[in-house]
Amino acid sequence: MIKVGIVGGTGYAGVELLRILARHDGVRLIAITSRKEAGIAVAELFPSLRRSVELRFADPGTADLSNCDVVFFATPHGVAMEQAPRLVEAGVRVIDLAADFRLKNLVEWQKWYGVQHTCPQLAEQAVYGLPELNREEIRRARVVGVPGCYATAIQLGFLPLVEAGVVDSGYLIADAKSGVSGAGRKAEVHTLFSEAADNFKAYGVGGHRHLPEILQGLQQVTRREVGLIFVPHLTPMIRGIHATLYARLTQEVDVQSLYEQRFAQERFVDVLPPGSHPDTRSVRGANQCRVAVHRPGGVDTVVVLAVIDNLVKGASGQAVQCMNVMFGLPEAKGLETLPLLP
Amino acid sequence: MIKVGIVGGTGYAGVELLRILARHDGVRLIAITSRKEAGIAVAELFPSLRRSVELRFADPGTADLSNCDVVFFATPHGVAMEQAPRLVEAGVRVIDLAADFRLKNLVEWQKWYGVQHTCPQLAEQAVYGLPELNREEIRRARVVGVPGCYATAIQLGFLPLVEAGVVDSGYLIADAKSGVSGAGRKAEVHTLFSEAADNFKAYGVGGHRHLPEILQGLQQVTRREVGLIFVPHLTPMIRGIHATLYARLTQEVDVQSLYEQRFAQERFVDVLPPGSHPDTRSVRGANQCRVAVHRPGGVDTVVVLAVIDNLVKGASGQAVQCMNVMFGLPEAKGLETLPLLP
Amino acid sequence: MIKVGIVGGTGYAGVELLRILARHDGVRLIAITSRKEAGIAVAELFPSLRRSVELRFADPGTADLSNCDVVFFATPHGVAMEQAPRLVEAGVRVIDLAADFRLKNLVEWQKWYGVQHTCPQLAEQAVYGLPELNREEIRRARVVGVPGCYATAIQLGFLPLVEAGVVDSGYLIADAKSGVSGAGRKAEVHTLFSEAADNFKAYGVGGHRHLPEILQGLQQVTRREVGLIFVPHLTPMIRGIHATLYARLTQEVDVQSLYEQRFAQERFVDVLPPGSHPDTRSVRGANQCRVAVHRPGGVDTVVVLAVIDNLVKGASGQAVQCMNVMFGLPEAKGLETLPLLP
Amino acid sequence: MIKVGIVGGTGYAGVELLRILARHDGVRLIAITSRKEAGIAVAELFPSLRRSVELRFADPGTADLSNCDVVFFATPHGVAMEQAPRLVEAGVRVIDLAADFRLKNLVEWQKWYGVQHTCPQLAEQAVYGLPELNREEIRRARVVGVPGCYATAIQLGFLPLVEAGVVDSGYLIADAKSGVSGAGRKAEVHTLFSEAADNFKAYGVGGHRHLPEILQGLQQVTRREVGLIFVPHLTPMIRGIHATLYARLTQEVDVQSLYEQRFAQERFVDVLPPGSHPDTRSVRGANQCRVAVHRPGGVDTVVVLAVIDNLVKGASGQAVQCMNVMFGLPEAKGLETLPLLP
Repeated sequence: MIKVGIVGGTGYAGVELLRILARHDGVRLIAITSRKEAGIAVAELFPSLRRSVELRFADPGTADLSNCDVVFFATPHGVAMEQAPRLVEAGVRVIDLAADFRLKNLVEWQKWYGVQHTCPQLAEQAVYGLPELNREEIRRARVVGVPGCYATAIQLGFLPLVEAGVVDSGYLIADAKSGVSGAGRKAEVHTLFSEAADNFKAYGVGGHRHLPEILQGLQQVTRREVGLIFVPHLTPMIRGIHATLYARLTQEVDVQSLYEQRFAQERFVDVLPPGSHPDTRSVRGANQCRVAVHRPGGVDTVVVLAVIDNLVKGASGQAVQCMNVMFGLPEAKGLETLPLLP
Repeated sequence: MIKVGIVGGTGYAGVELLRILARHDGVRLIAITSRKEAGIAVAELFPSLRRSVELRFADPGTADLSNCDVVFFATPHGVAMEQAPRLVEAGVRVIDLAADFRLKNLVEWQKWYGVQHTCPQLAEQAVYGLPELNREEIRRARVVGVPGCYATAIQLGFLPLVEAGVVDSGYLIADAKSGVSGAGRKAEVHTLFSEAADNFKAYGVGGHRHLPEILQGLQQVTRREVGLIFVPHLTPMIRGIHATLYARLTQEVDVQSLYEQRFAQERFVDVLPPGSHPDTRSVRGANQCRVAVHRPGGVDTVVVLAVIDNLVKGASGQAVQCMNVMFGLPEAKGLETLPLLP
Repeated sequence: MIKVGIVGGTGYAGVELLRILARHDGVRLIAITSRKEAGIAVAELFPSLRRSVELRFADPGTADLSNCDVVFFATPHGVAMEQAPRLVEAGVRVIDLAADFRLKNLVEWQKWYGVQHTCPQLAEQAVYGLPELNREEIRRARVVGVPGCYATAIQLGFLPLVEAGVVDSGYLIADAKSGVSGAGRKAEVHTLFSEAADNFKAYGVGGHRHLPEILQGLQQVTRREVGLIFVPHLTPMIRGIHATLYARLTQEVDVQSLYEQRFAQERFVDVLPPGSHPDTRSVRGANQCRVAVHRPGGVDTVVVLAVIDNLVKGASGQAVQCMNVMFGLPEAKGLETLPLLP
Repeated sequence: MIKVGIVGGTGYAGVELLRILARHDGVRLIAITSRKEAGIAVAELFPSLRRSVELRFADPGTADLSNCDVVFFATPHGVAMEQAPRLVEAGVRVIDLAADFRLKNLVEWQKWYGVQHTCPQLAEQAVYGLPELNREEIRRARVVGVPGCYATAIQLGFLPLVEAGVVDSGYLIADAKSGVSGAGRKAEVHTLFSEAADNFKAYGVGGHRHLPEILQGLQQVTRREVGLIFVPHLTPMIRGIHATLYARLTQEVDVQSLYEQRFAQERFVDVLPPGSHPDTRSVRGANQCRVAVHRPGGVDTVVVLAVIDNLVKGASGQAVQCMNVMFGLPEAKGLETLPLLP
């Protein structure tokens, strides 16, 4: 049994992590900490977990996580980098669902996150937790930075094309749409039901924090600069990301085969038949990415449609997938739940 | 391994049954029939089941279900009563998710469903599949009529009060609210997104088909006529039933204890602490009923709040729970999935 | 032209008031104040008002509202009672959309609102702004307390029955469902999209602030104590209240005629034909209440269904209706907009 | 008073047309026809119109529309082309909300709509009803084909760029998202609430009927072939279109000024300040298009965000705008209603 600790856990990635781990028979949940909810039963905050999670939130100051095998950080940016060094030193492996360990370029990181990074060494060692790209490195990692939700969908969607080098990687477009849970469980006006329901809008057209990690991931493959226009949108659904990707072919290729071959061995990436339009609900609650590839009008442009559940393959499910890889468990363990449809 | 067949299965109860059974390790799915979709892969109709359900819909005319141990009917009313007799004769046990085997009074049945019942003998033998009320009878049943979704929530909510005989059972009120999936996957104008979204309405105030089965269930307990005003409403969510129940106490009683004791041994009925307000999402996707009991203003009226997922505890989950009981499996087998929240 | 001032106006009742007044050709909007948004253009906060409302929010400390003919308070509870006395002294009439001037019993008021009332004299003079009940008093009022949204729907729904004295007014039940905008535009977790969407729950079963004003309104008619169980629910829609009301007849009466006659002259209460089920969207955006009356099963219980838009007939529309009455304008002026359907 | 007839009118464009015309004081509604609902009161089908629209649906066979000044067709494709010739001969002007009179190239038309066009002469004379592009032609038109909803948003969004000739018009991308009402009021499975809610998907990537009219409109400006990738998506809201448009600049230009100047005189196109992200609700229920222009990352790509209400500026509002132009009324008459927010 892998001994698991969670730091944070009062947000959506946290409750989703609990939902998954509570049914994962290879782990034992040792402790969960929250400054704000210390002392409160987890199931009191999230009644969906009644009778399944008996833990109470522990005070971060007193909880000792150093006897865990792995600690997940389901916290805002900036928390994991403070606590990870001590844990890693104690031999605990760290999986951060926030952004502290995603970027190699810390100057860039500091630009987007507005603070000084406090443990550059760990950031350098950390592995970007996209198993479909970095499986071997994740296996040996002491610290994993789980990709952002947009970043997961967009990279999985573009990977076959940029790996094969068949598109103009200097001019990629990612028009992505996210459910509102992507904004987290913070009390804010713009994500109130009465603001976000029956409404649709773009945001952050001028720049979004997931952009540098997407570029980093794609450039790891292309080994030269990638040009990407990334426009995120808020759509009135709870969960789900739909990435609509545009790329121009530089040579003729059977894109359907390209995708099918690239992901043939991937349990969590499903390439749909030609002509398909994946809907986000087809992955709701499941650690799955579904992808379809189109060439409308016979022109040189490939349109890729990629969907994930932002809280599962885009966060907590992917984190558990990484943990399974790190500890030599079957990669799908605890992640077999089927999507909830309708 | 229990050999399972499904008749129908292109509606919401059907896809939900498939979602549950595909992860139930005590069963093997032998066949699923559909006149309309015969020949089509199940996963083509429901991409959420890709890689998990490999079956194709079979033609009802040619599929032989007589070698199944149990056959579920996820069909419109009137289908099970036509096919059940032959199956039962072949030793197959039958679980009907529609209304054919719910009512004992077939005159009443015919009034509400508008057709002649074609197998009154089976209807008489059939057991009403509410395990919390009829567990022993279900164990031995050859035919089970799974309760309607409203009927499940309302009966579970009223049971402790009417069993204890502490309320005026001649004047009960059930104000119930259902998600739109309760209306099924039929193409109809009033359940279109643009009609049902951002909207709320009552319907069927003059009479609803679930009324007689609720009365039958409660009268099985009271052994005298029950008076119930039942007002169903359509609420803009996909899944979920919220029943708000009103009853007048005829004697002083600690209602909280009454409920806690009544359901202490029930895995799928969860009595919340005093003062609670269960939300439907706390059971989304799970075979669970959560109940809270209130006495507002210190008057003689008890207000009971009961929530279920109409497709799980209100349909397919309850059907599988019945199957587990019938075949001596652990009652929760295949039903351990946690609610999806948010 | 009536000179109008608004205090507050950054919440939903405020923006709705602006939407209505901007198209009301009998008024001129002089000033709108907001401590938090002072200096900001109204249309910057609410782009829906671009090109229609040119005002900026003014600082409450410097704005002089004493030259207005009427001032609306679209503020939290407790603000109007502080500012109203000075305005009334200056001859300005006051319409409060919050609760400061709704209750006559200030002991009760203080119990529910948790603060001392600071101007009991005005509270005593103030008129409860339900024109269908108090039209003549509103005409002469210097201060009007606009009813709460639940209170409007529930009182309009019960009025014909209690006025006629044909029901047991000691045992009324109001099961009411509200859209999320009723909770206002404050940043709070429980009204986030990801919390409130695809979800349904009751709240405040133990007691809700609208209860005393409903009782006060009904008792003004019955002239004796009224017994009311009031259970509010949150439903995943933006606007709308649906009240389902239950009352027991004490004598035989043609309830349909009773309702039709009671509201025959009322422009903003529409009694539907027998057997109808009003949906909330049939009044979306309009100052309208639609009512249907049922007697299910031929028993002695009347079920009344009443719908309003909580922000219009339940708040800002009713406030403007009161203003029209107060200033001798046609009651429907500025309120002719038709519901938005779908 | 302009005498108006409506053919069809039981769909969403129809009820929206009625909502607008019922408050338009320059018109008198003479007749509305519907084969299916003949004899039924309009307000019975659409209770939102109670007390405002007294008409009944008339049988198309017997209703005489030839004494109308203008007849709107709110019908499926193929109806207007059958009836328009006789009306036009009788001196009646025709405004078709469907596609019969949008395309000049009837070979193309027949390819997309699958039937033979029955009145090519009128199709040739007909004017494409986008006032911001063809105002003068509309003024004199006998037959107007009102643009599709996607087509309106996308053309308005691209117009300034293609008119100025500053982008590569051979490589435009339109990633557009529509509310579900765009699919109409037909009973179909894929637009059921339980299918479309809490879900997001692309559709018709291989080709959509609005593509040829968009190309026709843009080519009218460029006078040479335009290359456009158009990907429509279904988003879980009732009303609204959000078009996210991508174009590559071929020369340096101040795009903000370009848009502001182009639409300076347009009442119904609102260019937002730099950095804005229009949300669809900011035009809900209003005849308005709001546009924002971005140049993310300082590259050569312009991102345009354009929102409309698909039923108003994308259909019935635009139809009335055309009528106002045709009959010399103020263009905004009947279209002053403000957006409903929230």
